[in-house]
Amino acid sequence: MMKTMEDMFYFLMQDVYYAEKQLTKALPKMAKEAGDEELKQAFTNHLEETEGHIARLEKAFGMIDKTARARKCDAILGIIEEGKEVMDKASNDKELLDAGLIASGQAAEHYEIARYGTLCAWAKLIDKPQVAKLLHETLEEEKKADALLSQIAERSVNQHAMSA
Amino acid sequence: MMKTMEDMFYFLMQDVYYAEKQLTKALPKMAKEAGDEELKQAFTNHLEETEGHIARLEKAFGMIDKTARARKCDAILGIIEEGKEVMDKASNDKELLDAGLIASGQAAEHYEIARYGTLCAWAKLIDKPQVAKLLHETLEEEKKADALLSQIAERSVNQHAMSA
Repeated sequence: MMKTMEDMFYFLMQDVYYAEKQLTKALPKMAKEAGDEELKQAFTNHLEETEGHIARLEKAFGMIDKTARARKCDAILGIIEEGKEVMDKASNDKELLDAGLIASGQAAEHYEIARYGTLCAWAKLIDKPQVAKLLHETLEEEKKADALLSQIAERSVNQHAMSA
Repeated sequence: MMKTMEDMFYFLMQDVYYAEKQLTKALPKMAKEAGDEELKQAFTNHLEETEGHIARLEKAFGMIDKTARARKCDAILGIIEEGKEVMDKASNDKELLDAGLIASGQAAEHYEIARYGTLCAWAKLIDKPQVAKLLHETLEEEKKADALLSQIAERSVNQHAMSA
């Protein structure tokens, strides 16, 4: 049973820590499968960023005097599972596969945007402004990663329109 | 196996159709559990909007000459499951419960924002601008619903700061 906002904050930190760790496993596969060079690079770069997000979470656990612990997060597992299904079903066509990879990447980014948004709000609520500031840096990186995927997708939309 | 962007679009439409239907089951429970009156109202209003999103999806299925069909979406099930766990663990304290409900609601909104963003981009790609326009209306409603939850949360953060 959770009794305080501190308990709930710690609970959600563990969920996000798990999600980030899962993404460090999924992103190399996504980079490998991507046909578009810019998309491949985007996933590779985001893997490096994700390792930084894990380091920030570990620092944040320390700042609230808690052990860094991962807690199974069904949401990210569902998102990754759907991504695998698309990779599998679209593996015959590079254009489809890339479109599917972008969609999966954006679903993962949005999950993290929601969770880091909540963590930032809760960190302020429990009077940990430095934790809020630290996690806000990650939130901004997730938003940028999502926007970059939109740009890559948009470019493909435009190319397609031009070739039609 | 998916062979065309049309196949992939139809695939994702079924995923989102399932997600929206699941949310029509989850939202009444969230409205019932919410302690804050504005939050309760936000969930109730969003249930009504969600029914409109389902109607739009059904219209969009017709516009691509496909049968409206739901396809199990593990991501939304994971998000709803995590929401239930928070509701269960925080059920003793109304402040915690409301904070948890807002977090769950925002995770669901962000999943939909990601998915409708993709569907709008893909609808353009398969040369269905009217479908893109229709689904864009839903996308805007999901973004507004997310922003409203942030406002409600922020107000609570401010109240908490004032009483500290």
